[in-house]
Amino acid sequence: MLHRSAVEAVIRAGLAEDAPWGDLTSDLVIPEDAHATATVVSREAGVFAGAEVVRVGFPLADPRLEVELHVADGDRLQPGTAVATVSGPARPLLTAERTVLNLVQRMSGIATTTARYVAAVEEKVTEVERANKLPAGTITRTRVCDTRKTTPGLRALEKHAVTCGGGHNHRFGLSDAVMLKDNHLAVLAAGGASLPRALRELRRKMPHTACMVVEVDRLDQIEDVLAGGADVVLLDNFTPADLVSGVAVVDGRAAVEASGGITLETIGQVAATGVDVISVGALTHSVQALDLGLDIAVG
Amino acid sequence: MLHRSAVEAVIRAGLAEDAPWGDLTSDLVIPEDAHATATVVSREAGVFAGAEVVRVGFPLADPRLEVELHVADGDRLQPGTAVATVSGPARPLLTAERTVLNLVQRMSGIATTTARYVAAVEEKVTEVERANKLPAGTITRTRVCDTRKTTPGLRALEKHAVTCGGGHNHRFGLSDAVMLKDNHLAVLAAGGASLPRALRELRRKMPHTACMVVEVDRLDQIEDVLAGGADVVLLDNFTPADLVSGVAVVDGRAAVEASGGITLETIGQVAATGVDVISVGALTHSVQALDLGLDIAVG
Amino acid sequence: MLHRSAVEAVIRAGLAEDAPWGDLTSDLVIPEDAHATATVVSREAGVFAGAEVVRVGFPLADPRLEVELHVADGDRLQPGTAVATVSGPARPLLTAERTVLNLVQRMSGIATTTARYVAAVEEKVTEVERANKLPAGTITRTRVCDTRKTTPGLRALEKHAVTCGGGHNHRFGLSDAVMLKDNHLAVLAAGGASLPRALRELRRKMPHTACMVVEVDRLDQIEDVLAGGADVVLLDNFTPADLVSGVAVVDGRAAVEASGGITLETIGQVAATGVDVISVGALTHSVQALDLGLDIAVG
Amino acid sequence: MLHRSAVEAVIRAGLAEDAPWGDLTSDLVIPEDAHATATVVSREAGVFAGAEVVRVGFPLADPRLEVELHVADGDRLQPGTAVATVSGPARPLLTAERTVLNLVQRMSGIATTTARYVAAVEEKVTEVERANKLPAGTITRTRVCDTRKTTPGLRALEKHAVTCGGGHNHRFGLSDAVMLKDNHLAVLAAGGASLPRALRELRRKMPHTACMVVEVDRLDQIEDVLAGGADVVLLDNFTPADLVSGVAVVDGRAAVEASGGITLETIGQVAATGVDVISVGALTHSVQALDLGLDIAVG
Amino acid sequence: MLHRSAVEAVIRAGLAEDAPWGDLTSDLVIPEDAHATATVVSREAGVFAGAEVVRVGFPLADPRLEVELHVADGDRLQPGTAVATVSGPARPLLTAERTVLNLVQRMSGIATTTARYVAAVEEKVTEVERANKLPAGTITRTRVCDTRKTTPGLRALEKHAVTCGGGHNHRFGLSDAVMLKDNHLAVLAAGGASLPRALRELRRKMPHTACMVVEVDRLDQIEDVLAGGADVVLLDNFTPADLVSGVAVVDGRAAVEASGGITLETIGQVAATGVDVISVGALTHSVQALDLGLDIAVG
Amino acid sequence: MLHRSAVEAVIRAGLAEDAPWGDLTSDLVIPEDAHATATVVSREAGVFAGAEVVRVGFPLADPRLEVELHVADGDRLQPGTAVATVSGPARPLLTAERTVLNLVQRMSGIATTTARYVAAVEEKVTEVERANKLPAGTITRTRVCDTRKTTPGLRALEKHAVTCGGGHNHRFGLSDAVMLKDNHLAVLAAGGASLPRALRELRRKMPHTACMVVEVDRLDQIEDVLAGGADVVLLDNFTPADLVSGVAVVDGRAAVEASGGITLETIGQVAATGVDVISVGALTHSVQALDLGLDIAVG
Repeated sequence: MLHRSAVEAVIRAGLAEDAPWGDLTSDLVIPEDAHATATVVSREAGVFAGAEVVRVGFPLADPRLEVELHVADGDRLQPGTAVATVSGPARPLLTAERTVLNLVQRMSGIATTTARYVAAVEEKVTEVERANKLPAGTITRTRVCDTRKTTPGLRALEKHAVTCGGGHNHRFGLSDAVMLKDNHLAVLAAGGASLPRALRELRRKMPHTACMVVEVDRLDQIEDVLAGGADVVLLDNFTPADLVSGVAVVDGRAAVEASGGITLETIGQVAATGVDVISVGALTHSVQALDLGLDIAVG
Repeated sequence: MLHRSAVEAVIRAGLAEDAPWGDLTSDLVIPEDAHATATVVSREAGVFAGAEVVRVGFPLADPRLEVELHVADGDRLQPGTAVATVSGPARPLLTAERTVLNLVQRMSGIATTTARYVAAVEEKVTEVERANKLPAGTITRTRVCDTRKTTPGLRALEKHAVTCGGGHNHRFGLSDAVMLKDNHLAVLAAGGASLPRALRELRRKMPHTACMVVEVDRLDQIEDVLAGGADVVLLDNFTPADLVSGVAVVDGRAAVEASGGITLETIGQVAATGVDVISVGALTHSVQALDLGLDIAVG
Repeated sequence: MLHRSAVEAVIRAGLAEDAPWGDLTSDLVIPEDAHATATVVSREAGVFAGAEVVRVGFPLADPRLEVELHVADGDRLQPGTAVATVSGPARPLLTAERTVLNLVQRMSGIATTTARYVAAVEEKVTEVERANKLPAGTITRTRVCDTRKTTPGLRALEKHAVTCGGGHNHRFGLSDAVMLKDNHLAVLAAGGASLPRALRELRRKMPHTACMVVEVDRLDQIEDVLAGGADVVLLDNFTPADLVSGVAVVDGRAAVEASGGITLETIGQVAATGVDVISVGALTHSVQALDLGLDIAVG
Repeated sequence: MLHRSAVEAVIRAGLAEDAPWGDLTSDLVIPEDAHATATVVSREAGVFAGAEVVRVGFPLADPRLEVELHVADGDRLQPGTAVATVSGPARPLLTAERTVLNLVQRMSGIATTTARYVAAVEEKVTEVERANKLPAGTITRTRVCDTRKTTPGLRALEKHAVTCGGGHNHRFGLSDAVMLKDNHLAVLAAGGASLPRALRELRRKMPHTACMVVEVDRLDQIEDVLAGGADVVLLDNFTPADLVSGVAVVDGRAAVEASGGITLETIGQVAATGVDVISVGALTHSVQALDLGLDIAVG
Repeated sequence: MLHRSAVEAVIRAGLAEDAPWGDLTSDLVIPEDAHATATVVSREAGVFAGAEVVRVGFPLADPRLEVELHVADGDRLQPGTAVATVSGPARPLLTAERTVLNLVQRMSGIATTTARYVAAVEEKVTEVERANKLPAGTITRTRVCDTRKTTPGLRALEKHAVTCGGGHNHRFGLSDAVMLKDNHLAVLAAGGASLPRALRELRRKMPHTACMVVEVDRLDQIEDVLAGGADVVLLDNFTPADLVSGVAVVDGRAAVEASGGITLETIGQVAATGVDVISVGALTHSVQALDLGLDIAVG
Repeated sequence: MLHRSAVEAVIRAGLAEDAPWGDLTSDLVIPEDAHATATVVSREAGVFAGAEVVRVGFPLADPRLEVELHVADGDRLQPGTAVATVSGPARPLLTAERTVLNLVQRMSGIATTTARYVAAVEEKVTEVERANKLPAGTITRTRVCDTRKTTPGLRALEKHAVTCGGGHNHRFGLSDAVMLKDNHLAVLAAGGASLPRALRELRRKMPHTACMVVEVDRLDQIEDVLAGGADVVLLDNFTPADLVSGVAVVDGRAAVEASGGITLETIGQVAATGVDVISVGALTHSVQALDLGLDIAVG
């Protein structure tokens, strides 16, 4: 899902930023014709994301660098897992190391964190199934979604990493779905029409391929929003009890999304309320990098 | 220290990424002539970084947006602190919100984390001073430094944020200091000359304005490195006891830097060993965003 | 809906392309301090699109150029209508003339053509209402939509122009809606699962904010597509009679879109079949520029 | 004549615009290792332009895509003519389809239209030759030229397409020829010197490798313009009768160009007046795309 | 003739190159609110070029910097001449200093050198006039022209500087004039047609607004070249005696250009041969920067 | 030390500048399938710099162009030395010729000039050794350094060329070393603290990997600067006698750099004063291009 050109642009910028006029140390110390073989190795357990970055990144520094990947996006890593082997001229390999690792560590960190949230949902739902003596898989697993709280310039990479961890993508940006928040609803209200009518009017102006998400703060807003034809009702900062009520009110007439400060500790409980989607800003805005290193042998 | 043009480029890319063909919702819901006033507010305690991003960011979306900053980079924020006021046409204000916040939250997160590391050093050193009945300030505070483990494309912003939190910058990239790691030392060793001689030879080829940092894994490497004329001896993954020994061996003949998995819990102990510099990758590679929001009133 | 930065990038590229090393004629003939006043005038009837281009374009050539717009996007133009007045230094005004006009003529051409298609729908539907003695406005006007057949680099401008003419936007690109064409259906079929099952499986993997459009060639595909949960059934190259049948089969369970070589002559008849959306590639792939000129007085 | 890098830049921008974060549909439906073979096929008769776009475009989406061209720029196409075969991984092939086709359809549309204008000139001149019992080829065929009324960002491609249709290029932009229009002449006149003297003075300042084109509205301006040393006299919006007179006045002392609203219907008559060049804005400002499609077989 | 956007692009690149992460010294030493006033002063005699660089350059570093120019492009400078005054915040003024000066010194160096060549022509021609007792100004001054031997990325600025020194511009690049050198003539010869016929054939394919320059090595090539319709005959590496012969052969049927290792010492003699144009690569390929400095008062 | 991507960016810009819409002459004259072989040949003696430009440059114009280099950066050239052979399609070879040569001539010019300065130092120091009957090589050769007086956009290439000629690089730009000039010292002085104290305070804020260079105008400033901890004392515009005194005062406590109008004639004398480094702006601000040509055989 990551397009080559998006990856290339990010890596080119990273290389230029890290070595605007060369790698002072390697250029002075490493002979021009020295050869190196390096292995990208995981130093901790996690989920890998960033195969395209490794595949495309090193050859951008020097087309003679050859890359062989040993794992795929989404694969589980253990401490010591060999992720990829890179071989070729030593200087550009050393020069590209940090830029590639910075990206892959960040992406794998996102994938790993996402996988933890997905596992927490799975665990809780399984518990509910068992408690209710339902066959495993009976209850749909709530999807864990990202948000627009990504690093400017890296959204495509970070959203891809979320999917590597088993998560789903929310809208990519402001242009590809209609999402009404409190400010928008206030403006609609000021327009004089009832909310259902205002939303239906809006639907007539929206692209027919766009989805309408409406964020509500209170249970009593839901009926109006459904009457207006929302595809997704986003219950923002609801208590679990209110989420249960909200799911009941919506009753399948739209998808139900929960958001607002949901953590690894609370997501199971939120999932158990029956919402369809949980969006978690922390998947991308507060990333714990996964520790990956490059073991290099020169010569 | 952040240059306007560097900030502009990042924000332009962020806006284009978030709204490649406009803000579907605001464009349909908010009247073209609607006016808004918004306040950037801190939702938690921390240290602010990103004044230039706020100042430059909103007007890039629309030059009619006016920004007034209430705090400066490095200022302490409390929950509820008003950081800045933005006013002007509502549509572009809403469009720029996420891009600006994503950057400022990240930068303030870095500043806040850095400040915690700096405080941990201060606390420990003060404790040592008291234990030894030394006047406060007698012992130099070990400097907390960043690394090259930054987000590709955002290094200038992230390194600036480190200074806002009271930290210092290490070299910016591969081009502005010579730093010899194990691979470089192995290549030098393979050259046949002794390490001191090889380093002195390297010094003759280096720019006279560049600094030479040499990373060592063992105490017994230090004398050779000093004999070679290193400006900074980087003790990588040393135990506190070995750091104390390392500082004693160097004995003021070079700056001593410690690195390798140092955390908020361990940094005080490391600082107490007498090293001059501690570099911490986590300042930038695993950022906890600071929660900042935009309270907007349209109309 | 057109973002300033998107417009700026297009105009900068246009100016650089048209005058890579200056305007040879004006630089030699027009005194540096000569002042000019110019009026953008319509030479034929049509619908205007491109206000932002005029507003942003001239000042990009020289910030001293002042622009006053007399019409807004979507306004009707007659031969002789004054669209905008530009005044300031003569040289950059002459230099920017062609780039601005090329864009505005193209955009207004798109708006004008779109308006003709919209009018043809209106006319036919009104005729049907009258024939059935229905009050005017009873029947929903079929929306006229663009496609992805736009000029590379100008999609945002061209899609905006479609809305200025009363048309609607289809998905912006490949990233913001799922649209299954014959190749995709063939691959799904090769997977072994039934189409409804395959589509439901796909829905589970799609972003919950994305819309699913499925293109069909035959009436007998429709039930499967609906069973799979399509939001939009796209009837490609159907005869009017088959469109009527298709609308009957769908029966409100999804939006119905017609496409395939629909012209100004045939669109009324297509609209009368009851489809919800008609997408017309010719709105943007074969644009008749609207004749707009610049009447300039130098000195 | 189309430089590879110019084509690459346009296609990169097109791909980024069409799929900013991937091809949602193909990425979900088409297996990563699926292979496809596709044929670019003409759906109608016309003249081909855009070989370099096809050759360079697909591999830009993925270097594994292989392209074989079956026709060359300028070749005649019939409905069903196979233009090129593309084979390789299915996903990037599908992703690149629209961007490549949008460009090639536009370029071939320009070539086809140009060829019609060129044929209209040929037909009329042949008729005159026959009427005067002159051997075929006696009368020079008036050249059909483009203008600067091109799509911003695509001028190099569009001007190349004009030559594929048998047309010629006028100046590329403002920097490569001196062209005096009414505003310039008015400024020169205001300078006090006679027009011939002013033009000769201008010639002394112009690059010696630049051509001087002067646009006139009236027959009585021609002598002065020739006395001033114009290389080309551009008769703007002249009637055929006045064109005949203009050609007689110029009498070989400069090239004669006609312009102003010349259509496919009128160009023969204009050519028959004996002018050397006819410039036609409609070649590029109002392009009817040529219908080309991609027949794809996946797997 | 220098377009603002061309200048801006060069300066932005220069600032980014010189200070990728800020001005370490000024950022640490100069208070953020310090004000400075600076004067660009000439340290030697010469001709100024680069007003637009000064005017646009400083405000690009910070829009609060105000620039007042005291001289115009082409003005004579003496040691101590104040070229411009800049005032505003001290930090960005110091940061922009070197980038602006590097460009202006280079451009003024080109203008100054060009002026020396122009003066050498003037001096020699005046001498000839006096020797022949002709009124001053009787003989046309041979124009001194630049070539394509410019610094990649700076051609527009460097060619502008040539005109500031009284020189003229040759073609800007490969796209705006036809210039046949020995390789082209060899290919034409290999085609079998006579040179005059081949050139006339070429003229039929060239844009009618393009000029044809043909470079010859021998006198006996000239007649063929003229018969082929060349606009300019370029006599490459001719001796003065052969230039006199060449001018006689051409006899006004085309412009005559001399080139090939012409220096300040030899240009007078070359001009005296009666050629119309002398092109001098050294004007731009070997530039002696003019010494300009910035006298700054901070506070 | 030149990174591929830096070279690519410069060449792409150069090609686009030289041939914005193709090579008019070669496109019309040279058959599309013509093959050429060309040799880059030195026309004069000098030092080569620019191997990466030749290696990367031609294939950027067309990937089918093959390059074989016969010399390496830093090699001596004689008139007639074959530098590289290029073969492949004739058109793009001709198109790329000027851009590649412009860069290589400039870089080799810098290398050649630098080598002359280095030789002058060598000669003088050897003379001193002989006069003092010291074994050859006893006295360290003063290093010849560049400055920031480079062409905006080409700094990486020009600084690399200096090293090819045996010179050394000074700081790359404003971000990678602290260099205090008179304005900075004046601001520090205005702060009230003594210079040594102010410099030590500055050192506490500087990155520990940055070097502190302090420029002085008078001998009596040196002690304070050393007391402040400067790494390099830059003696600006000192007489040789004062340089000798300065070296004596510094007495090995810092590196001593001399600058200010040093020429090929004076550098030997300056080197003999015992300074460690001499920085010479003229290495890059006033470059005499080395004459390199391309001997081409088409067909």
